[in-house]
Amino acid sequence: MACNNCNDERTVNYRDKEIEKKLVSRLNKVEGQIRGIKGMIEKGIYCDDILIQISAVQSAMKGVSKILFENHVKTCILDKMKEDEQVAVDELLNSINRMMK
Amino acid sequence: MACNNCNDERTVNYRDKEIEKKLVSRLNKVEGQIRGIKGMIEKGIYCDDILIQISAVQSAMKGVSKILFENHVKTCILDKMKEDEQVAVDELLNSINRMMK
Amino acid sequence: MACNNCNDERTVNYRDKEIEKKLVSRLNKVEGQIRGIKGMIEKGIYCDDILIQISAVQSAMKGVSKILFENHVKTCILDKMKEDEQVAVDELLNSINRMMK
Amino acid sequence: MACNNCNDERTVNYRDKEIEKKLVSRLNKVEGQIRGIKGMIEKGIYCDDILIQISAVQSAMKGVSKILFENHVKTCILDKMKEDEQVAVDELLNSINRMMK
Repeated sequence: MACNNCNDERTVNYRDKEIEKKLVSRLNKVEGQIRGIKGMIEKGIYCDDILIQISAVQSAMKGVSKILFENHVKTCILDKMKEDEQVAVDELLNSINRMMK
Repeated sequence: MACNNCNDERTVNYRDKEIEKKLVSRLNKVEGQIRGIKGMIEKGIYCDDILIQISAVQSAMKGVSKILFENHVKTCILDKMKEDEQVAVDELLNSINRMMK
Repeated sequence: MACNNCNDERTVNYRDKEIEKKLVSRLNKVEGQIRGIKGMIEKGIYCDDILIQISAVQSAMKGVSKILFENHVKTCILDKMKEDEQVAVDELLNSINRMMK
Repeated sequence: MACNNCNDERTVNYRDKEIEKKLVSRLNKVEGQIRGIKGMIEKGIYCDDILIQISAVQSAMKGVSKILFENHVKTCILDKMKEDEQVAVDELLNSINRMMK
């Protein structure tokens, strides 16, 4: 997922189709898990069993965010650093603080 | 969401339909957010804008888990405590440790 | 650490001296770690090595809080539940929300 | 806290004495808080009041780690990037993953 035009219309060129596919496939799985949780609620499944599934979704989303963030640092942030170190570092620290809340 | 038969087939009687509706409605919103994130990935939206949406999903799922857990404590756990304090407390601490990971 | 007089002057009777000793001994270790971190800062040790020590302190404090909380639930909260379920559950959920922030 | 010799003996030159003083002063406060918590345990103070103080220590340590990390990125990591982007990014992601555990 190399970044060609980070500053232009807030889009990136996903060169690495592999990563894009991996992210979408993980999100499809999460979508299925969410539907599963709704079904569990409607069927009256025991709360703690549902809480386990919610934890699984949280872990899966953390995984998605980790893949995306790693690529972001390796492409967009590295590119931005060559243009304006201050801007790149501020954006990076801003993302990290958001993820650590 | 009072708990009549927590120990029976791992189901609960959701007396409080309001809570059930609230949970399903929040999960529907999360499902929409997940689809939105997939679209953003496919359209090549800037990584950090996607990371913001992933954080929003994480917060929403934390909210769902909080509502469910609070009801769980107020119904299932309270009921279990009257039967077997030790079992109820162990299960409660187990759930809390899972959520705090 | 059984709780005799939770509502009286906000103190508890620590019947279980073992737990009290365990907590104090862990906190002594943390105090040493904090002093160590200050020394690392003053000696100009590499930032990432200091960040590792800060993580160790965070884990240690999480462990202290887990031991204390488990005892709290098993003693004070259980006792309170016999007096006033609503008050006990509200206090419990309040503690959990604080720890999960 | 500019980084002159990150790769040499794992030390950094703390040019910015202000940050060093700020960190040490915060850690002194944390040391006092730890001693306070020990006193609370020994005096039999109510568990939940101690849990509040433990949360305060956790927040304070998170603050220390944030200040240190921000400086680390702005100095050591930026410097390393000029030498070897791959090494700098890997180290950065490694630190972030540790802090997000």
